[in-house]
Amino acid sequence: MPTIRVNTPSARYDVYTGRGLISSLAPRIERIAGKLPRRVFVLTSPEIWALWGHAFLHSFAEPPTTLFLPAGETRKTMPSVEKLLRQMVAAGGDRGSLLIAFGGGIVGDVGGFVAAIFMRGIRYVQVPTTFLAQVDSSVGGKTGVNLPEGKNLVGSFHHPLAVFADTDVLGTLSDREFRAGLMESIKAGIIRDRSLLRFMEEHADEVLAREPEAVEKVITASIRMKADVVNRDERESGLRMILNLGHTVGHAIEQVTRYKAMLHGEAVGWGMIAALYVAHRRGTITGAQAARIERLIHAYGPLPALTARTSSLIAATGGDKKNIGGVRRFVLPVGIGDAGIVEDVTKAELVAAVAYMLSQAKARS
Amino acid sequence: MPTIRVNTPSARYDVYTGRGLISSLAPRIERIAGKLPRRVFVLTSPEIWALWGHAFLHSFAEPPTTLFLPAGETRKTMPSVEKLLRQMVAAGGDRGSLLIAFGGGIVGDVGGFVAAIFMRGIRYVQVPTTFLAQVDSSVGGKTGVNLPEGKNLVGSFHHPLAVFADTDVLGTLSDREFRAGLMESIKAGIIRDRSLLRFMEEHADEVLAREPEAVEKVITASIRMKADVVNRDERESGLRMILNLGHTVGHAIEQVTRYKAMLHGEAVGWGMIAALYVAHRRGTITGAQAARIERLIHAYGPLPALTARTSSLIAATGGDKKNIGGVRRFVLPVGIGDAGIVEDVTKAELVAAVAYMLSQAKARS
Repeated sequence: MPTIRVNTPSARYDVYTGRGLISSLAPRIERIAGKLPRRVFVLTSPEIWALWGHAFLHSFAEPPTTLFLPAGETRKTMPSVEKLLRQMVAAGGDRGSLLIAFGGGIVGDVGGFVAAIFMRGIRYVQVPTTFLAQVDSSVGGKTGVNLPEGKNLVGSFHHPLAVFADTDVLGTLSDREFRAGLMESIKAGIIRDRSLLRFMEEHADEVLAREPEAVEKVITASIRMKADVVNRDERESGLRMILNLGHTVGHAIEQVTRYKAMLHGEAVGWGMIAALYVAHRRGTITGAQAARIERLIHAYGPLPALTARTSSLIAATGGDKKNIGGVRRFVLPVGIGDAGIVEDVTKAELVAAVAYMLSQAKARS
Repeated sequence: MPTIRVNTPSARYDVYTGRGLISSLAPRIERIAGKLPRRVFVLTSPEIWALWGHAFLHSFAEPPTTLFLPAGETRKTMPSVEKLLRQMVAAGGDRGSLLIAFGGGIVGDVGGFVAAIFMRGIRYVQVPTTFLAQVDSSVGGKTGVNLPEGKNLVGSFHHPLAVFADTDVLGTLSDREFRAGLMESIKAGIIRDRSLLRFMEEHADEVLAREPEAVEKVITASIRMKADVVNRDERESGLRMILNLGHTVGHAIEQVTRYKAMLHGEAVGWGMIAALYVAHRRGTITGAQAARIERLIHAYGPLPALTARTSSLIAATGGDKKNIGGVRRFVLPVGIGDAGIVEDVTKAELVAAVAYMLSQAKARS
């Protein structure tokens, strides 16, 4: 079973990938953290718990206290956080308690944030159940919630004790969720792993058919890329920003469509197409490279139809928190397998890129 | 001007004390943090701003964006935090922004927490304006808010870049606020600084008359004590817990009286009287020592009248977050100038101590 080490100035922990992890969590956590405390919480969604609750409980002598977060980005809010914190107090949680975030990216982000601020911080473990959460959001210690003004505007850096990415759960994902998650692996390939990108091109059928060997290869490579970037730049002061390829426009799409029309990975897929356009215009990638990556994105699609006004999308990028001192930061691929950050993308370039993306969306709808 | 260094594994910064700090903040902050960012926020209360806003603005070329938190423990909530975060987004705040918490302990706790979680953490500066905030809450990086279930149940450890404790502001405190703040200095003396305790006994008149030299001596010694404890135990895994002398019962008093009847320092004053009773019964202090400290507490009183049911107070101590794994932790003075933590205080002992405290309160009302 591949284990990937995260090693930053503030934390060191492992990401375990493989099968059968969910049904053997208790002894695995005890090996890392010592005897389980009096109060263990599991934050999950009703859907995940219905499918996997039985397996989850299998290894626990005392069942953990279950907390539920209904699915959906609209629940990733400060009021949800307060409600969970209050439930934890009512259930006798204390500073020694441990929280297990068992679900997709939203459960992981909210669970990590709750763990970060409950009594000024308790220990937690990530057990991501979507492709996207396994390869991206569960690794790196970023936690948080949205404000009505925008996504992930509130949060903490708070690393888990460990991440258990059980590939068995991927079998229960819908085709759409699975494909959306793979967009982050494509991103990983574009910005830092040319051989992953090639593997995804050459083995698209096996990956999309969820053949275990192919899926594990993609997941492991994606997590390795993420961990490597986080190890070099924990606090996103430089390198880590390249992970935001496709996210400036992607977040704008999510915001304009009110987090309803698109899964995160799908919005990032469209956002990458906009970024490729800017990169090609600037010459950091060739037309052939842009076309090749675009083909790959569509091969792992279909991305959902997208109708929005260019002006609304441009306006929505203005509130993106990756802006520092009023400068719009933008991640551009540099060839295949590298990326850079620029701060001088003009409004005109952005308008052209968004218009191109919308024309592609229209052509395919 | 005395400067006290805080030096923990995660942060190193100075606490500046003295006069005229408020009107010279901008260059002082720039000396520490470099050029001020595009967006500087000041979180304050309407009362403090009315008194000191003009002096505050004096040194800023560009006036900071003002955010207000109305006074009172009832505003130290998650909804208040979300409201402030949204105002910061609306005003163009970004990751490079800086926040100045300018007010009493509540403004400092809420401001520090907002800074800890806004875009996963921005830099902030503490400018405490009450005695209590200057000697205690502004130093050490603890930030947070209350839940309906209890005080300070949510928060972060997030250190400021610097603390500026301007003693000029103490002149505008009411007599009651000033006396309440001094309870924390008495606590400092009891648990770790016998000479401070003696000074406060021998110079009570000068201190209460706010003679600058006497006040500065008490403030500096109190901050030094706090910084020394924080330096040795940043995360409150051991030693730092002794700072909670009087707080188990003190928090219960605040909770039962719904944060309305007592200032924090006053509740801690009563709480220390309960703790002295337990310590005397257990023999960690003599009867003479207990009587001497009790006299000192009353000399810096009067503490407000306190009528509450013993049973309500005992129940309220159960939710105190300093309990780990269900054990009730309790700080007891050991002689004068030292303190220890015990975990075996029985309900009977607590009932007797609270009953004693209430009888003292009754005798004095």
